[in-house]
Amino acid sequence: MDFAPLYSPAARRLQPSIIRALLSIVQDPGVISLAGGTPDQNLFDLERYSAIAAKVTLDQGRQCLQYGETQGLLGLREQVCAYLAGRGVDVDPDQVLITNGSQQAIDLLCRLFLGEGDALAMEQPGYLGAINGFRNLGARIVPLPLADEEGLDPAAVDRALTELKGPKPKLLYITPTFQNPTGSCLGPRRRAAMAEIAARHSLLLVEDDPYAEISFDGPAPQPITASDTQGHCLFMGSFSKMSVPGIRLGWAAGPPQVIRSLVLAKESADICTSVLAQAVGAEFLRGGHLRATLPTLVNAYRARRDVLHAALLRHLPGGTRLNKARGGFFLWAELPAGLDTLALFQTAIAAKVAFVPGAPFYSAEGQGRNTMRLSFCAVEEARLEEGARRLGEVLSAAAAGALAAQP
Amino acid sequence: MDFAPLYSPAARRLQPSIIRALLSIVQDPGVISLAGGTPDQNLFDLERYSAIAAKVTLDQGRQCLQYGETQGLLGLREQVCAYLAGRGVDVDPDQVLITNGSQQAIDLLCRLFLGEGDALAMEQPGYLGAINGFRNLGARIVPLPLADEEGLDPAAVDRALTELKGPKPKLLYITPTFQNPTGSCLGPRRRAAMAEIAARHSLLLVEDDPYAEISFDGPAPQPITASDTQGHCLFMGSFSKMSVPGIRLGWAAGPPQVIRSLVLAKESADICTSVLAQAVGAEFLRGGHLRATLPTLVNAYRARRDVLHAALLRHLPGGTRLNKARGGFFLWAELPAGLDTLALFQTAIAAKVAFVPGAPFYSAEGQGRNTMRLSFCAVEEARLEEGARRLGEVLSAAAAGALAAQP
Repeated sequence: MDFAPLYSPAARRLQPSIIRALLSIVQDPGVISLAGGTPDQNLFDLERYSAIAAKVTLDQGRQCLQYGETQGLLGLREQVCAYLAGRGVDVDPDQVLITNGSQQAIDLLCRLFLGEGDALAMEQPGYLGAINGFRNLGARIVPLPLADEEGLDPAAVDRALTELKGPKPKLLYITPTFQNPTGSCLGPRRRAAMAEIAARHSLLLVEDDPYAEISFDGPAPQPITASDTQGHCLFMGSFSKMSVPGIRLGWAAGPPQVIRSLVLAKESADICTSVLAQAVGAEFLRGGHLRATLPTLVNAYRARRDVLHAALLRHLPGGTRLNKARGGFFLWAELPAGLDTLALFQTAIAAKVAFVPGAPFYSAEGQGRNTMRLSFCAVEEARLEEGARRLGEVLSAAAAGALAAQP
Repeated sequence: MDFAPLYSPAARRLQPSIIRALLSIVQDPGVISLAGGTPDQNLFDLERYSAIAAKVTLDQGRQCLQYGETQGLLGLREQVCAYLAGRGVDVDPDQVLITNGSQQAIDLLCRLFLGEGDALAMEQPGYLGAINGFRNLGARIVPLPLADEEGLDPAAVDRALTELKGPKPKLLYITPTFQNPTGSCLGPRRRAAMAEIAARHSLLLVEDDPYAEISFDGPAPQPITASDTQGHCLFMGSFSKMSVPGIRLGWAAGPPQVIRSLVLAKESADICTSVLAQAVGAEFLRGGHLRATLPTLVNAYRARRDVLHAALLRHLPGGTRLNKARGGFFLWAELPAGLDTLALFQTAIAAKVAFVPGAPFYSAEGQGRNTMRLSFCAVEEARLEEGARRLGEVLSAAAAGALAAQP
């Protein structure tokens, strides 16, 4: 039997992530992939995690192999509070929800706020997993264009929200720190302004912040949520980029009322996050292992950022604008107009190099066709250099063709 | 700011599980709780799980601390297939989705099939987490009453589905084996009939089967899905009752098309289940530890079932019908008409004994008011005996009062 006719309207809209679809094409180990977004597993501290997993299971197994609180293990929520306090965000464990990775926090927020036809605003280009989640729910996305390497311009955001026709956005979703995909970082003064805008427009600002600890020039700016005096910000953090994604731990911290409602939504979604994973994460933070392991990651990623950035400057065609990210996993290139990176993807694969076309990071059709995301996080330096060279050849040939095609 | 006015219609419907709400009242350690539904953590094999967690993290950490496939770790899906083959269900790893506990499979199925006003059929009394999930999505629940200790009567189900007015159910949800809450077990012949009914009515039969390994009189009957020749059954299994719930591992196995769609829904829900937890689960199954540890659980639970059943027979008021479950965690009592177990809950707490009132296991108001679920799984035998005595006092007094109140 064909079950598709029984699917709900929302299910008929379900689309796979284009990145995961593209990446599944790239099976050839000869392809140098600048397309990935996953941390380098060769940098994982396996011995440490192994010892912690053994210890918590033996010492606390009656708790961490049993069902746990939907809101999350208290010991982990306390550690998250301590971590956030170090970044200037003052919350107590009642204001924290542990999720099965940050993606679940996005999903629960969607379910809590967004019915069919409801609107939310988000920066663009922006995180694809969020665009997909919002779209799959039938929400109307109001795009807010990034202004420059410092991200959104608060005055422009305020104007856009004020002049907007149609339903008012309930959420304002941004990744202010070393954004996926552009690597941009919202300046400190703009952060305070964004918190004010959230209050002025009576919406919830969702601050998705997985990359802040991967910061190449000293500590990242304080979160927007740190300057939120009126309870309009929800902060989302994650183990996935600053340590390991495979334990699947994320958290949301914000207004108690919203957290309580998210807990209800999570109870019906999956009862609770893996308590074993939570106990491992709590012990990792409690033992100071995050601070101990971060320098290794940051140094490796910084060196790779430097290599890829320098190589791209040499190899990409003239007229390209390249963002030198000061943290995170990604560089962002804006190629000469007329180049279509989606169309060039297969050509690049044939030349044994992969990237992520920029268009999917925009919710509206036809935008960012000449942009691409380039990841340095999980590729060795020599291969970054060679990948940039291959990519340069493909793009320079395409740029020459585009020029020649002009009248 | 009060964010509730911004919530979606679905979110305004969100209700907490009444069981979790009731249990949170019971903080007094002097209360003997026959209300729980969680396995006994004193039976967990901590040493085994600790050794496995240490080993997989060290040996496969680059994989199991990294992002994983949305569908689930291939090694675990293969083990699930081997396990299911032993129960007569023949599926390949492409037909298996790993979830964050079974509750997530229910949630994803809801999202896939049930829009506002869509109908599904389910046995009643039935699993509360499913009733809540269906209700929270605004689905219309068609109740199918259990006939006897062998569960649903297929002829009655067929008739009810045929004569039903209004939208046809898309799903038929049942827990045929040692059901929560009644402990009933669908007979082998009825199972084949149920698979045929699913095909005849062009719906998906969802077979939720977490308790089958906790079987007190030899192996449980083969799943309904084992007799499904037309691809209309989806089988759901879980680690939670047969081993440990805290790793949060469940799985769905069924028609490839439905599994592919569930994978899409899961990608947007949380990307993937904890890969660390999946690797631990895979190694637990691969090493034969499920078969090695089950006899300890089954023997302990059988002895407790015997003690509680015998004690309740002695202490419950005359006219009570008590189901002697042949597996699982629960006994089910139908008290003399006129007794209202929801109203008696507080009286019982005052007498230092807890149970779960039966009414919430029915989707319609006013049903099952004189029923209750009694759990033997996590209470020592001496306390089961004493709990039954206290409960008997409360109920006998109430029954005497109810009699006296009659004209």
